[in-house]
Amino acid sequence: MRILLDAMGGDNAPQAIVKGAVLAAARTEDQIILVGPKTEVFELLCAECPDGIPQNIIIVGANDVITNDDAPVRAIKTKTGSTIVTALNILKDGFADAFVSAGSTGALLAGGLLICGRIKGIERPAICSLYPSLNGKVSLLVDAGANAECKPRNLCEFGLMGSIYMEQVLGRENPKVALANIGAEAEKGTQLTKKAYELLSESGLNFTGNIEARDFTTGKCDIIVADGFTGNIILKLSEGIIMHMMKILAGDIPAEMALKIKKLSDYSEYGGAPILGVSRPIIKMHGSSGPKAVMNGILRAGEYARQNVVGIIADQIK
Amino acid sequence: MRILLDAMGGDNAPQAIVKGAVLAAARTEDQIILVGPKTEVFELLCAECPDGIPQNIIIVGANDVITNDDAPVRAIKTKTGSTIVTALNILKDGFADAFVSAGSTGALLAGGLLICGRIKGIERPAICSLYPSLNGKVSLLVDAGANAECKPRNLCEFGLMGSIYMEQVLGRENPKVALANIGAEAEKGTQLTKKAYELLSESGLNFTGNIEARDFTTGKCDIIVADGFTGNIILKLSEGIIMHMMKILAGDIPAEMALKIKKLSDYSEYGGAPILGVSRPIIKMHGSSGPKAVMNGILRAGEYARQNVVGIIADQIK
Repeated sequence: MRILLDAMGGDNAPQAIVKGAVLAAARTEDQIILVGPKTEVFELLCAECPDGIPQNIIIVGANDVITNDDAPVRAIKTKTGSTIVTALNILKDGFADAFVSAGSTGALLAGGLLICGRIKGIERPAICSLYPSLNGKVSLLVDAGANAECKPRNLCEFGLMGSIYMEQVLGRENPKVALANIGAEAEKGTQLTKKAYELLSESGLNFTGNIEARDFTTGKCDIIVADGFTGNIILKLSEGIIMHMMKILAGDIPAEMALKIKKLSDYSEYGGAPILGVSRPIIKMHGSSGPKAVMNGILRAGEYARQNVVGIIADQIK
Repeated sequence: MRILLDAMGGDNAPQAIVKGAVLAAARTEDQIILVGPKTEVFELLCAECPDGIPQNIIIVGANDVITNDDAPVRAIKTKTGSTIVTALNILKDGFADAFVSAGSTGALLAGGLLICGRIKGIERPAICSLYPSLNGKVSLLVDAGANAECKPRNLCEFGLMGSIYMEQVLGRENPKVALANIGAEAEKGTQLTKKAYELLSESGLNFTGNIEARDFTTGKCDIIVADGFTGNIILKLSEGIIMHMMKILAGDIPAEMALKIKKLSDYSEYGGAPILGVSRPIIKMHGSSGPKAVMNGILRAGEYARQNVVGIIADQIK
């Protein structure tokens, strides 16, 4: 497999990205294609690898960068020399098998749609987030913010795509799909959740019903399905509470305990989450990803492509 | 003022309720009307007050109880001898000024609507929740779950009612109203939030714009406006994270630190939150309220009535 890696995405780019690429290169036979300013990336690679650059790392030049301040669609259309647009064009043309970036989520989604296109039959692609639970098991939150407004059928597609990803890439057998809702009973919630409940029940997925917000952190399901508005609230509220809690406890908390809490919002083990529904594998890593997260993102992207998640989704949505 | 108190509501009833009534009686000249099984409540009162029952506590008999397992509307219609229905009838007839209960939220809302009615001009009453922030200042979350489906105008009414309550009862001057959303900009979110943003901007309230979920715990606004689906997710997710965090840290966390975290989900200081939009003052306390929370609930209910919150809302909604 050939994995494109955005050398300029995220808060710690390009240093952490290059370090992550070197870590990953030692653990996989996949080829890693660093996309970024050639000289800068090359120099960082040389510094990182005094004994020589690994055979399975190559560099593709791209000098422009899309930032979080850029309007996503406009940036994709105008910043044609950016790392994201360059990588997506290579991905679309089939010269690589997956793309990993810690850059702008909006640009990755817009670019994925505009350049690679949707999987036929999927109406709305979704941004996912690996939601850490307190027993150490992560759940996949779909949608974490791509579609503020959803139809019932979209939620059902989120369940299907999430289920295939968790089974193929994270090895969850017969993964449990639950619908984020404000009560356990089928008739709870909004018109949207009621109808989505029906569709999910008839979908053939391992649908375990509604999950209340109180139980999101229990890890009792593998996929949490939500519209993008609700999913984004879930994601950011969770991050906010843990971040603020760390702040008030800072100082009078032993180091190992701080680590324990921090682990709850530590995505580095999981290496980012997929954008599902786009016709080519894209992994979005957390903006604050360090070398280990980048390494895991690359390894995960290899699995995403190798397991043919896109192909299986396309087959099952027919 | 005369404050009705549901002797049988909540997990710790009737003991904690009676204890709370006795605590409050020493701190207010308001009359406290305990509504519950006469003999049982009287015996608890006697045990609690060996030197005599305070002059400002009286008992009104009601032998039936509405539980969380009862379907709210049906329970209000059939359990006519319950503490909640008895109290609401007294409240409606003007023989008391406010009602406090730690019982079924659904039954309090349904009963408030069916027995006391709405404030004229308010389309949808809301359940509120005092949302603790990490700087010790609470925000009022409106709606915390009464209306899963909302129109923009409802959200605007939530902002107005919350603003009046926070100003009159919690003494917040010119309280800041913010709209729960997935981005700071006016055009972010759903059709509902976009239109609500417009209405709130033109409302004359101190509207500070959108608030992202990451900032809910910062206490930077006094009122967080949300539809009831989103509000309920916010409330239960916050409780869930803190509860689960306490669990994993239990054992290896010093007692004073546990207390510090626990305080984040400790509503006892605030004595519950109002159901706003009903034509008579009702305060809903947390189901797990202990004596101190009950005491504060009673004192708060006195202010809710004394400050004429219902009258001010009715005036301003005209």
